Amino acid sequence: MKKGHQVTMKEIARKLGVSVSTVSRALKDSPELHPDTKKKIVEAAKAMNYQYNLLAQSLRISRSKVLGVIVPELTSHFFSSNISGISDTAYRRGYNVMICQSNESYEQEKANVKTLVSSQVDGLLISLSRETKSYEHLQELYDREIPFIMFDRVTEEIPVSKVTVDDAHGAYLAVHHLLEQGCRKIAYFSGPEDLYISKKRKEGYLEALKEFGIPESEARIYVTDLTPEGNRKISLQMIAEKDRPDAVFAMIDPLAIDLMTVLKEKGVKIPDEIALAGFTNNPTSAVVDPSLTTISQPGYEMGKIAANHLLDQLDEIVSDEPQSFVLQTTLVARESSKKKH
Amino acid sequence: MKKGHQVTMKEIARKLGVSVSTVSRALKDSPELHPDTKKKIVEAAKAMNYQYNLLAQSLRISRSKVLGVIVPELTSHFFSSNISGISDTAYRRGYNVMICQSNESYEQEKANVKTLVSSQVDGLLISLSRETKSYEHLQELYDREIPFIMFDRVTEEIPVSKVTVDDAHGAYLAVHHLLEQGCRKIAYFSGPEDLYISKKRKEGYLEALKEFGIPESEARIYVTDLTPEGNRKISLQMIAEKDRPDAVFAMIDPLAIDLMTVLKEKGVKIPDEIALAGFTNNPTSAVVDPSLTTISQPGYEMGKIAANHLLDQLDEIVSDEPQSFVLQTTLVARESSKKKH
Repeated sequence: MKKGHQVTMKEIARKLGVSVSTVSRALKDSPELHPDTKKKIVEAAKAMNYQYNLLAQSLRISRSKVLGVIVPELTSHFFSSNISGISDTAYRRGYNVMICQSNESYEQEKANVKTLVSSQVDGLLISLSRETKSYEHLQELYDREIPFIMFDRVTEEIPVSKVTVDDAHGAYLAVHHLLEQGCRKIAYFSGPEDLYISKKRKEGYLEALKEFGIPESEARIYVTDLTPEGNRKISLQMIAEKDRPDAVFAMIDPLAIDLMTVLKEKGVKIPDEIALAGFTNNPTSAVVDPSLTTISQPGYEMGKIAANHLLDQLDEIVSDEPQSFVLQTTLVARESSKKKH
Repeated sequence: MKKGHQVTMKEIARKLGVSVSTVSRALKDSPELHPDTKKKIVEAAKAMNYQYNLLAQSLRISRSKVLGVIVPELTSHFFSSNISGISDTAYRRGYNVMICQSNESYEQEKANVKTLVSSQVDGLLISLSRETKSYEHLQELYDREIPFIMFDRVTEEIPVSKVTVDDAHGAYLAVHHLLEQGCRKIAYFSGPEDLYISKKRKEGYLEALKEFGIPESEARIYVTDLTPEGNRKISLQMIAEKDRPDAVFAMIDPLAIDLMTVLKEKGVKIPDEIALAGFTNNPTSAVVDPSLTTISQPGYEMGKIAANHLLDQLDEIVSDEPQSFVLQTTLVARESSKKKH
């Protein structure tokens, strides 16, 4: 154990194999617990030299009534919907919200955590930057018992509550729909392969193909860095192929729209020659011509659930046992994929 | 004078007809000032029973290195561009940014000011909510000498620096372009008439008409509450008219796009029968069919100028004399207005 390290309730819980809220209740001498359990916990706490965190306690009592939010970017429709859901919920429950954006930078994300903690927010809602691969800044929050939960871009390494969407199933829905339209040579336009959503959406793509008897060896995967130039490059490459796909599932709507632009330039008919589906349901996707078939993510709902759960934890309506909320996506079928039969 | 009221440097400056920075320099015994000026100011400060604001001073010295931002909403592309400009600039200069949204609510805006001030931000950048008609909350900031500036949605009532775009001139550019295309019966689709931008854009609309010899009596103004239903209503009303317009300038892009949807439904050809121009240059406007002619506002630039100016004030690179920055807009001519001659 590090010198000067303060034992936390979470460490006691881990050691005894009980929940943090059980430890918390035992140390508060709650009448709900069995006396034997209480005794076991109190003794372990003493043995581990646990010091009741008075500062954290006093912060919990003298609330600032402010939640802190960290998102990778604010210009994305998805994250701004998350924030609307969080803000509306917080405001309704008497809380204000302060937002920081990490700009997809790990360093900025660490600075954001520090800034919001110094501002004495009562809790945080965090969605990770694309760059974040190590989690000491979150581990520190966790060790200091500052309440937080994660949404959309999460890590399994920190045992807090998480709200995510079922990416693989969303991709499955899109590809299944293209298959139902009669397409059999369906390509997947993927972002960088180490991105979580690239992987998850690929899983759903492969699963739908499998269901229609198409083996993984016949999968057609094109990878782009998601810049307009990168998207254009794989679009031209795909069009030039001899045995070209009859449909494309694009990992995100902006990629689908970049492809659409190239298809139109080259006179390829959508959906007759190539059918298209995206993922996100950006406002733009409804108004492009042809309108884009896509997967709708419940961004507002996600923010609402995340904020309500964190506030429930703060108000001790629910325990701070980590929970996982996985939200379902829905298919929005539009002109870009509907074959006339 | 109110009981317990603390005299501020601003009041001394107002009384003597000098700038606040001159007062500040005099009280700091700066060698830059003429001894007579210094003497006059120091005597006035004594007579007015001025107490040097030690708290404000100490806050200025022990900086949090955080700027607070208040915007009406985050889902708008324009405000999220402002925020990107502010964040990039602040981060480059070693500051972090915390953002609150007012949701177009006056009460929420007041709560935001309070939250950010309690978080001890070094300064604020504020864009007013649609509801805000009284300014005590800003007057209080001003009296407490907490540095802030306003952008886009501003009020003349508080003498701080402001960054705005030239709305009237932008509207003039759009309508002038429609006139150049040969249109002569140009309608203005306006939002609620008490909105600042409704008025300013109307001014530009009328000015362009006047330049082409069209009197105000021939102006065709349709007012909507900017809801999809309201927009649809005035669109149908306009189409049904006997002597209907040959062009429409819509106050904001989403209104132009709602009109476009109705025109397409009714089989009215764009731009041949009715030409269209909007204002904002949302990403959607480039991809609708036909693509929408619009006025581009320098949202990112605006945020950058606002943040740099506030940081220059904090670093005393510039004085805190109120300055006004008015940014120019540009015409983005696309298919919705280009008549083939």
